[in-house]
Amino acid sequence: MSWNRRHVLSLADFSPAEYDTVLQTASSFREVLTRRTKKVPTLQGQVVANLFFEPSTRTRSSFELAAKRLSADTLNFAASTSSLTKGETILDTAKTYLAMGTDMMVIRHKEAGVPQAIADEMDRLNVKVGVLNAGDGQHEHPSQALLDLFTICSLINVEKPRSALLTGKKVAIVGDILHSRVARSNIWSLTASGAEVHLAAPPTLLPKAFAAFVKDSNPEISRQLFIHWTLEPALIDADFVMTLRLQKERMTSHLLPSLREYHQQFGITRDRLKLCKPGVRVLHPGPVNRGVEISSDLMDDPVLSLISQQVTSGVAVRMALLYLMGGGKVG
Amino acid sequence: MSWNRRHVLSLADFSPAEYDTVLQTASSFREVLTRRTKKVPTLQGQVVANLFFEPSTRTRSSFELAAKRLSADTLNFAASTSSLTKGETILDTAKTYLAMGTDMMVIRHKEAGVPQAIADEMDRLNVKVGVLNAGDGQHEHPSQALLDLFTICSLINVEKPRSALLTGKKVAIVGDILHSRVARSNIWSLTASGAEVHLAAPPTLLPKAFAAFVKDSNPEISRQLFIHWTLEPALIDADFVMTLRLQKERMTSHLLPSLREYHQQFGITRDRLKLCKPGVRVLHPGPVNRGVEISSDLMDDPVLSLISQQVTSGVAVRMALLYLMGGGKVG
Amino acid sequence: MSWNRRHVLSLADFSPAEYDTVLQTASSFREVLTRRTKKVPTLQGQVVANLFFEPSTRTRSSFELAAKRLSADTLNFAASTSSLTKGETILDTAKTYLAMGTDMMVIRHKEAGVPQAIADEMDRLNVKVGVLNAGDGQHEHPSQALLDLFTICSLINVEKPRSALLTGKKVAIVGDILHSRVARSNIWSLTASGAEVHLAAPPTLLPKAFAAFVKDSNPEISRQLFIHWTLEPALIDADFVMTLRLQKERMTSHLLPSLREYHQQFGITRDRLKLCKPGVRVLHPGPVNRGVEISSDLMDDPVLSLISQQVTSGVAVRMALLYLMGGGKVG
Repeated sequence: MSWNRRHVLSLADFSPAEYDTVLQTASSFREVLTRRTKKVPTLQGQVVANLFFEPSTRTRSSFELAAKRLSADTLNFAASTSSLTKGETILDTAKTYLAMGTDMMVIRHKEAGVPQAIADEMDRLNVKVGVLNAGDGQHEHPSQALLDLFTICSLINVEKPRSALLTGKKVAIVGDILHSRVARSNIWSLTASGAEVHLAAPPTLLPKAFAAFVKDSNPEISRQLFIHWTLEPALIDADFVMTLRLQKERMTSHLLPSLREYHQQFGITRDRLKLCKPGVRVLHPGPVNRGVEISSDLMDDPVLSLISQQVTSGVAVRMALLYLMGGGKVG
Repeated sequence: MSWNRRHVLSLADFSPAEYDTVLQTASSFREVLTRRTKKVPTLQGQVVANLFFEPSTRTRSSFELAAKRLSADTLNFAASTSSLTKGETILDTAKTYLAMGTDMMVIRHKEAGVPQAIADEMDRLNVKVGVLNAGDGQHEHPSQALLDLFTICSLINVEKPRSALLTGKKVAIVGDILHSRVARSNIWSLTASGAEVHLAAPPTLLPKAFAAFVKDSNPEISRQLFIHWTLEPALIDADFVMTLRLQKERMTSHLLPSLREYHQQFGITRDRLKLCKPGVRVLHPGPVNRGVEISSDLMDDPVLSLISQQVTSGVAVRMALLYLMGGGKVG
Repeated sequence: MSWNRRHVLSLADFSPAEYDTVLQTASSFREVLTRRTKKVPTLQGQVVANLFFEPSTRTRSSFELAAKRLSADTLNFAASTSSLTKGETILDTAKTYLAMGTDMMVIRHKEAGVPQAIADEMDRLNVKVGVLNAGDGQHEHPSQALLDLFTICSLINVEKPRSALLTGKKVAIVGDILHSRVARSNIWSLTASGAEVHLAAPPTLLPKAFAAFVKDSNPEISRQLFIHWTLEPALIDADFVMTLRLQKERMTSHLLPSLREYHQQFGITRDRLKLCKPGVRVLHPGPVNRGVEISSDLMDDPVLSLISQQVTSGVAVRMALLYLMGGGKVG
């Protein structure tokens, strides 16, 4: 077990040993979730504050459930009813929750860097409060990438999911890469695990500069990262296909001609999966625009689609992260 | 004890034995609620998701409290902050909560049939998740009718409330029958219990076709169901008077002349209750428009009005339903 | 220990013995909050309903956390999604929560007197439900003044905070006195504790009639209450400076020229604190408009500013109030 982090903000500097610690811990919590009483006393009396400055039901519920299953108390903050409308700064909001006695903060914000700024402030104040980035702008969404990693590693070896299982695997990431925090976090986790990552999108959603930026920030992964402006080369012999949610507002900002045309060029269908390796599986972080990123029947395919497993993995992985950040022991 | 249901979606096919099982179970939970510690460990570690696609404070709080008193963890979903605005389908939302590990779903939706559709999908997926209809469009609101039944049967025999106590009783249901899911569910439970049900409303809110439809769908109850377009015949010798909430929007859609005129013709007052049997009691599902469906002083009458008891019954009945659906044992 | 109240609605008639009971109880809960498991079973199985007819994240979270740390179940009511929009009266809403089995109600409303009216109704119904005023219009906010008292008394004697510690101390309250429920509650608690209270604000926010009104309602405190239309005389030799939140809407209603001018005349800065006693401390109920009521660097000063301690005190004081109202014993 290798873990020295108080915060989980980005996967850019995660080590293989850290990935394996998360996978192994999540695996033990998955076992808890099969019991009738799906609860452990690990975080009893601790407070987890979900500070969602950007609305989200799915991710907030997943974190809330993870915290409750660790027996923590939860506080939910929704931006719409908050003091933010009264002119308070975000750091002041976070410090208020700190002063109330919050032990861990789960932060979502539409601006990149907000969770980092809050974590920095907690460290500056020298308080032992962990900050978890639950999605910041177009920057990162580490718990999503970790649950994706847990899902696909568990598929390969359910007893012992570990990142090295991805060595030499080909993973296609398809869709709105440019605006996707999910893609960014997955690029770090997948390349660190030894996979080849093939990005596929129209040039407006995957500009050359993006690839250059990623490679510049970590030259080691250059040989594992590939850019495609058509779908086919990304799919050929792929082991896993990750589709990304397409924001409808990309149309109105003229980055895409139409949803229909997008689906024709980059939508994932059963037919197109024939280009991939036998045994290929499809992922999507949800919520899905059926018939846009992925065809409706493929999404519901209980074998090919891992979407449901991703959601289930999410609770176990978030339990693992809260547990590790809390420095506790599995009860 | 007779119970084989995973879901509670409609009362149309409830048997007297099933009604009695609910009443008997609710009765034992009512006893729990008189203790200082109003909590049992029955559903410890289970997750009850309240998926309210239509806003409601009262019903949502009642279900939330019922779940908490059974020691379940609760997840609340409010449509306004949800992925629905992001284009996800309702079934996909339900499947997301399923994948997170939800054991029971309490669903409210403005469209009839949504809870049924979700229950069908759960069965198709062969998962042991119970679905409870907390109000779907103008279709049904079974837990409301069951708490009404529990309230009036308990009044007749607090120790042993059972549906046969209503045999031969006359119950008037007054108000916006046409648009009322509460009325529909109550018609099933009251007629199945042997009561005579007298519906009273202006013709715009109680068209002939409505009565024909109800009788067609269950000819057995024809002899127990009566239609009145004036209030008096419904009230004469009634044992119970159920008033229904009048939606203000009925005015703007020209189904009613004015609230004042409605109250003059169909509003329940102390004076009008003189037509009923001695010992008559008045019910209302809430929230009440004071002075419209019912006069303000009658509503506050601690003897004649059962409104407060209905709310109290609601928690016990909802505990009973969650308990029975969960297949557990009273802790 | 002196306590006979079921409700906490106003501090106007609080006795020194009652203040000391709150301070002493809060002090014992503060000790609980330093443990790893910050929870006691005191209110297990009890239900605390937070009925916030006016939105608030900060105060609602503080009460929610206080209730959870006493092991109570909590119900949250937010006005926006409530039956109020359906025409139900506030008293009916409160009675609905009563009928569900609520043991204590925490009420915030934009109209003065609403918590009192609900408490009166509960007494009239002869039910043992406690009502706590969490802020009603411009009237009172007793838990805020009690946490302020706890904060400054604890600063003077952390082991034994008691109100007599303020005898002869000078406290300046600066800002929008006229519209502030926080100021009103603090005037009662501070004068009852023997402090001299110096109010400072522009005449539009502190009209002569205000002072007359306060003194008329309690002539005993006349000798302890002083009015200033400039900042200096209030600050000279002050032991504590309480700043109040300035509502932005005061500008648009022409009560103030501009935020900048307000800050120049009444904003609290390090420099201005030199007029005060050595060891002076600054309080603010939050949320703060940085650079308006108080300079940004002063707000963040870990010695001079008590803002963070106020928030922490809030949880302990609210635990104490719920505990005392519940008539229980510290677990």
